[in-house]
Amino acid sequence: MNWQEIFATRMDRMQASEIRELLKLLDQPDIISFAGGIPDPALFPVQAFQEAMTDALSPAQSSAALQYSVSEGFGPLRDWIVDEMAALGVPCTRDNILITSGSQQALDYLGKLMLSPNDTALIGWPTYLGALGAFNAYEPHYDRLIPRGNRSAEDYAKTAKDNGGRVKFAYASVDFANPTGETLDRAARENILDLADTLDIAVIEDSAYQSLRFDGDPIPPMLALEIARKGSINECRTLYCGSFSKTLAPGLRVGWICGAEPVISRLVLMKQAADLHSSTLNQMAINSVARSVFTDHTANLRRVYRLRRDAMLTALKEHMPDGVEWTKPEGGMFVWVTLPKDMDGAALLRHALETQKLAFVPGQAFFADRSGANTLRLAYSLADEAQINEGMKRLGAAIRDLA
Amino acid sequence: MNWQEIFATRMDRMQASEIRELLKLLDQPDIISFAGGIPDPALFPVQAFQEAMTDALSPAQSSAALQYSVSEGFGPLRDWIVDEMAALGVPCTRDNILITSGSQQALDYLGKLMLSPNDTALIGWPTYLGALGAFNAYEPHYDRLIPRGNRSAEDYAKTAKDNGGRVKFAYASVDFANPTGETLDRAARENILDLADTLDIAVIEDSAYQSLRFDGDPIPPMLALEIARKGSINECRTLYCGSFSKTLAPGLRVGWICGAEPVISRLVLMKQAADLHSSTLNQMAINSVARSVFTDHTANLRRVYRLRRDAMLTALKEHMPDGVEWTKPEGGMFVWVTLPKDMDGAALLRHALETQKLAFVPGQAFFADRSGANTLRLAYSLADEAQINEGMKRLGAAIRDLA
Repeated sequence: MNWQEIFATRMDRMQASEIRELLKLLDQPDIISFAGGIPDPALFPVQAFQEAMTDALSPAQSSAALQYSVSEGFGPLRDWIVDEMAALGVPCTRDNILITSGSQQALDYLGKLMLSPNDTALIGWPTYLGALGAFNAYEPHYDRLIPRGNRSAEDYAKTAKDNGGRVKFAYASVDFANPTGETLDRAARENILDLADTLDIAVIEDSAYQSLRFDGDPIPPMLALEIARKGSINECRTLYCGSFSKTLAPGLRVGWICGAEPVISRLVLMKQAADLHSSTLNQMAINSVARSVFTDHTANLRRVYRLRRDAMLTALKEHMPDGVEWTKPEGGMFVWVTLPKDMDGAALLRHALETQKLAFVPGQAFFADRSGANTLRLAYSLADEAQINEGMKRLGAAIRDLA
Repeated sequence: MNWQEIFATRMDRMQASEIRELLKLLDQPDIISFAGGIPDPALFPVQAFQEAMTDALSPAQSSAALQYSVSEGFGPLRDWIVDEMAALGVPCTRDNILITSGSQQALDYLGKLMLSPNDTALIGWPTYLGALGAFNAYEPHYDRLIPRGNRSAEDYAKTAKDNGGRVKFAYASVDFANPTGETLDRAARENILDLADTLDIAVIEDSAYQSLRFDGDPIPPMLALEIARKGSINECRTLYCGSFSKTLAPGLRVGWICGAEPVISRLVLMKQAADLHSSTLNQMAINSVARSVFTDHTANLRRVYRLRRDAMLTALKEHMPDGVEWTKPEGGMFVWVTLPKDMDGAALLRHALETQKLAFVPGQAFFADRSGANTLRLAYSLADEAQINEGMKRLGAAIRDLA
């Protein structure tokens, strides 16, 4: 059977994620890895989840916890998120919240909602690899939102039209972005909103790391800034994607989209058709755990990850040769390294794995056009401070070998 | 903001499911409802889930249970499914299994895998409403697989070509289908395989109710029949969709696709891009519960649902006026009723709700072309035998009122 003739055209763009393929090779215990941008499992609030599951499976709740439920999500969890969004400057109601199976599903659904083939999405250069993966299924073109350079709104619109569609949305990860660790300042956020107003497009705000700010002042979400302009979330074009994966636990797959009710109600229909609803039991458990430990637990995460961020920045300063640059994140899990212009991150990874037992993610995969060969991503979330220092020493040695 | 201009063309076909909208209205306790085709929560294996969650959140397992995991699914659960498939006549390996978030997600992914706009899917007339919902997102045309009438393979191919695409797959729910309760006999299954071979298309076998056979001999899945023809699952065009929703619990959202490895590996990439993976914790819990209680538990479900099926068939015989016909399911949850030719199921529902406090699902929604106005679906899974008798009495009265 010739499956190629049966597959839809969208399948041409679905390729293996290099990061996930790489992660499969990292089971050897003697490798120091800064590749996986995942939470430290030693920090999971296990006891709170044990208590939450005991409650959810108690006689009073088990019938609901194990049964089908509504596509929009578990009401009390949506209410908790409403309060959380209000604290971020986003007044809203339950009807502005859809529960998704992680914020990865949120990105997939938003691509599915808006992108017809040959439409254009404005994204970062580099951007979150999972966003490229999710959007690719809907066969868009990409254009550079960050850095914008001197592109005008007219330039974006014309390029999109030449490519056979129109600009549908601007996508940006706003706080300590994966992969760069960089944060959009308030002016940059307002600038994206101005551009979106001019182009009459949506804005997807990826806020997966929002709760992990170590220092500096919090900056309001673009959704909050837009509500300040327009008065009500239901008049806004910004769709905010949140996640419990970086704060409580990724294994339960619970995230959310917060946005204008006419959009949320269409997304509810999409979810109904795609997987009916996210796990009832997990939504109930996340609700209990969020209500009992979210504030204290995220404070502890910030304390631990901050020490690791500090250790990495100190070690980079000590061990990197001249000509290597890196970002200084105010939170999150990532530092982005720019190598000397002619050095290839993928070649460096091969050399580092072989000679230094060291792993990281080459940066090329994060660019829609596969540029950025001389970049790489380091995640400090899974390593302790001693490993971080040793790892950066090894990275410095590997770079010197190739220089 | 004009969202209509931002939405993708596929959104034109996403409409509210009438069944789910209807279910929202059924909270009044004095209504007897045969509308929801969902398991009886009194039968959930709660204790087994309590034990499974305690294990999954124990020190030895909690780090894995709460962490990200691979897109293809939890290995030990895939192994359990491999054994289950072997018992059904489908020898396969772990690489032939993808874990999905319920079989609804399996249908969504298979539509996404194969359907470009204007391609054709062959389906039942009527068919599972959730399949229509999932496939609609990929903008196909539909043609009638069941009943086939005297359509030849050439007729299907020509119609599909005239509609601007080609036939991509035949979709069939094989055992005690939702909504009809009917089972495809062996000849009908072989006939679909013949057609698929001639047209060189895939076959989607929806087997959500397979474990709920009350009487009659089991019929091999189409995938087993095709393996008997071709020697190996990896040479087969049939993609089998299984689910734990009707056997253990729907609230955890765990199902699977079993098929040729080259297809499963593409679906793994799709899942990675769409939601990374199904809940790690829930896959571990389902694995434990399946291994500890599946055989005994499904035997108990069959015993209880069989009594309800018997009660419904007896009551229909007693209370239906002349000119009303219904199916005699050998398992599952549904009886399909055909009313006198000019009677409208939706009008009957309104009348029955108002005068008899009785609910069911009018059949029209299950037809891709909205025909079948004189049909309705009754689910007996949630009602006890006394309610079933009383309900059929009320249904008979409502039908007599409109005759």
